[in-house]
Amino acid sequence: MFDKILIANRGEVALRVMRACKELGVKTVAVYSTEDADTYPVRYADEAVCIGPAPANKSYLVMGNIIEAAKTTGAQAIHPGYGFLAENADFARACIDNDLVFIGPSPECIERMGDKSSARETMKSCGVPTVLGSDGCLDTVEEAREFAQAVGYPVLIKATAGGGGKGMREVHDPADLESQYRAARTEAGAAFGNDGVYLEKLVLRPRHVEVQILADDFGNNVALCERDCSVQRRHQKLIEEAPSPALTEELRRAMAVAAVKAVRATNYKNAGTIEFLLDERGQFYFMEMNTRVQVEHPVTEEITGTDIIKEQLRIAAGEPMSCADRAPFAPAGHAIELRINAEDPAHGFRPCPGTVTRFEPPAGPGVRVESYVRTGSRISPYYDSLVAKLIVHGQDRAEALARARRALDEFVIEGIETTIPFHKRVLANDAFIAGDVTTDFIETQMGDVL
Amino acid sequence: MFDKILIANRGEVALRVMRACKELGVKTVAVYSTEDADTYPVRYADEAVCIGPAPANKSYLVMGNIIEAAKTTGAQAIHPGYGFLAENADFARACIDNDLVFIGPSPECIERMGDKSSARETMKSCGVPTVLGSDGCLDTVEEAREFAQAVGYPVLIKATAGGGGKGMREVHDPADLESQYRAARTEAGAAFGNDGVYLEKLVLRPRHVEVQILADDFGNNVALCERDCSVQRRHQKLIEEAPSPALTEELRRAMAVAAVKAVRATNYKNAGTIEFLLDERGQFYFMEMNTRVQVEHPVTEEITGTDIIKEQLRIAAGEPMSCADRAPFAPAGHAIELRINAEDPAHGFRPCPGTVTRFEPPAGPGVRVESYVRTGSRISPYYDSLVAKLIVHGQDRAEALARARRALDEFVIEGIETTIPFHKRVLANDAFIAGDVTTDFIETQMGDVL
Repeated sequence: MFDKILIANRGEVALRVMRACKELGVKTVAVYSTEDADTYPVRYADEAVCIGPAPANKSYLVMGNIIEAAKTTGAQAIHPGYGFLAENADFARACIDNDLVFIGPSPECIERMGDKSSARETMKSCGVPTVLGSDGCLDTVEEAREFAQAVGYPVLIKATAGGGGKGMREVHDPADLESQYRAARTEAGAAFGNDGVYLEKLVLRPRHVEVQILADDFGNNVALCERDCSVQRRHQKLIEEAPSPALTEELRRAMAVAAVKAVRATNYKNAGTIEFLLDERGQFYFMEMNTRVQVEHPVTEEITGTDIIKEQLRIAAGEPMSCADRAPFAPAGHAIELRINAEDPAHGFRPCPGTVTRFEPPAGPGVRVESYVRTGSRISPYYDSLVAKLIVHGQDRAEALARARRALDEFVIEGIETTIPFHKRVLANDAFIAGDVTTDFIETQMGDVL
Repeated sequence: MFDKILIANRGEVALRVMRACKELGVKTVAVYSTEDADTYPVRYADEAVCIGPAPANKSYLVMGNIIEAAKTTGAQAIHPGYGFLAENADFARACIDNDLVFIGPSPECIERMGDKSSARETMKSCGVPTVLGSDGCLDTVEEAREFAQAVGYPVLIKATAGGGGKGMREVHDPADLESQYRAARTEAGAAFGNDGVYLEKLVLRPRHVEVQILADDFGNNVALCERDCSVQRRHQKLIEEAPSPALTEELRRAMAVAAVKAVRATNYKNAGTIEFLLDERGQFYFMEMNTRVQVEHPVTEEITGTDIIKEQLRIAAGEPMSCADRAPFAPAGHAIELRINAEDPAHGFRPCPGTVTRFEPPAGPGVRVESYVRTGSRISPYYDSLVAKLIVHGQDRAEALARARRALDEFVIEGIETTIPFHKRVLANDAFIAGDVTTDFIETQMGDVL
């Protein structure tokens, strides 16, 4: 195992990785922007190095500063968290070039799966079902129109470098194709520096179901059950749960088999997630792969009794994962994660940065809180608005729901607006309670809060 | 299920029961002493009734006031928590006489198992191994001496109404028998209003291993694995874990079978604990039964995925327990509970009541905190010194230990002395790390902190 690693991130995920390190006896180096100097993870780390001011492109995205901090402090490896440089193949390569272990898959895997269009091709070639889509990028609006006509509307335009819903457009009416195609390219170019887009047949009213995988150098390739992340607003996940209320045992097994097949085919190592769309007939289609740990990884940890961050460290250090002998995993109980954001659901979820004057998280059985916030913490306007993740675990979904309501009622966050009232409303919604939601749930069922 | 229940307790266990109620949709009535008026559980409850001043014999032990509070508020049942009236058969009977459900076993079961000497006889008669001991109480020092000579020294004098180590004396030298016998009777009489004592052959260097059971009206009698509570100071548990590091699969099964046999034989209903001594040869002996939920129940909840308090409510409401179909239980991972008391381990564990000026509990994966304390809470000198229970859960004992250390390091309690430094030292002790401790561990291994 490593003696010391650097965590190239901030907020809750930085703290999450540091806690895992502490339990493994690994020393931690935090990097931080001047904006984040007073945050809890910076104090929590054994050492901390300032890498520049906000916004992120002056600090958390400056590869040179981060590599330099690692070398100066004698860190042997870098954990990228999620976001920022987590899926940047150049950063993974820069680590390797500087004799630092990148805690994640190889740069080749990141590249291959990070390009959505080539990832699709890879999956198709190894027999994982994909949505009917264009072979590679469509460089002109004419090509796009031709493809859309061939498969029939509605279609989905997707940025090949995409993520988080950026550069993604639904087209239901042929008349909108050109404008949406151009808008998607412009948005993709601005967001990713790559304006390539491809087209897929739009799956109507899908569920978002993803499979967590772990793969090590010892031939262990395991699926840690699935997560259902259908509750999204503008392609941003708000609530995730495991297992999915929509899967039969058979479907669970089939998706796990497909995910592990993909992992083997790409010689992928470390943690990753294969995202699928699940349609109303129970057919699933590869959507994309995330080559990093995800925000919602705790729900999987709860139902499988694993520590995914520690497994990432073990795998990166050349050790076998510790949970392989417990595979295949059957879900133990049910877990739900609610993302508590500093946003005002009563006003279009507008960000509400500011100082948290009182922070009293819930506690008791089956309640886990992942947060870097304390009473007195400042939520910066420069970064994502995640204040806390509330994760509940119960012996079944009904207990998890009851526990989520109980925990939300206990949660005290004063000084800023948060999405807690929104979550309370979702937890009272009949369709959500029945587990009967698709990715348009918020728009169609919770419209009055948008 | 009940609509409303009263919780006849205070502190963390009152909050624990209220949280379970909230998740079940059951309204809660708190009762409180004037001393406890400002505590969190009193605010947490739907209603709260003052039942008198401190100390407990003016409030929490006044049956009439509690029954009256239940009737006035329309509560249908009373949960006694642990301590106070939890094992008082007269209280259970008073509830029944007032058309209130006592959330626990029948008064007859409490009586039968509450009298340690008769409990022993009951266990012997149903084939559960017991320590060689006197048949019933020994009314004179001569009888005691005769018995001790017959079985050989060392012997243990125990109060038949005992609990918490009161009225209990080891006798290693025949010359001490008389004085210890008299001291035990005097102490027992003062503590329990019953000075009956009996003798047992002292089991040398035993482990304390107890089996959690649940039994309902539908014929479900299940054992929820065992807890190891060998880390004790003067018969007071300080650290508990599940499963026991000392048990083989075979021994675990044998102890579960013995526990369920005892439950069936006594027609016991609700939650209970059969405490055993486990000697160095792997023989186990019935010690006593606790006819209530125990302080250390969370470690069992963690490794079995059950909510014991909710099961108590279901059983008392005449419903089947919800976890019967998951029996027999195999431990899922490993859990450890550390009792954080307001005591100064550097000065003989003397109580340190006072105001908590800062309370920041640890969080993150596998960490659960049960506490009624917030920043600003006052720890009263009138009640037990338990400030918080820190429960950690990991995929194995090594991970649970690492997590316990990490969580203790994060735990901030300012304004009072606590046992946190003591727990840190235990977690660094080689014998404890190896799981190789007996009930004399603290006296023999941690002597310099006593």
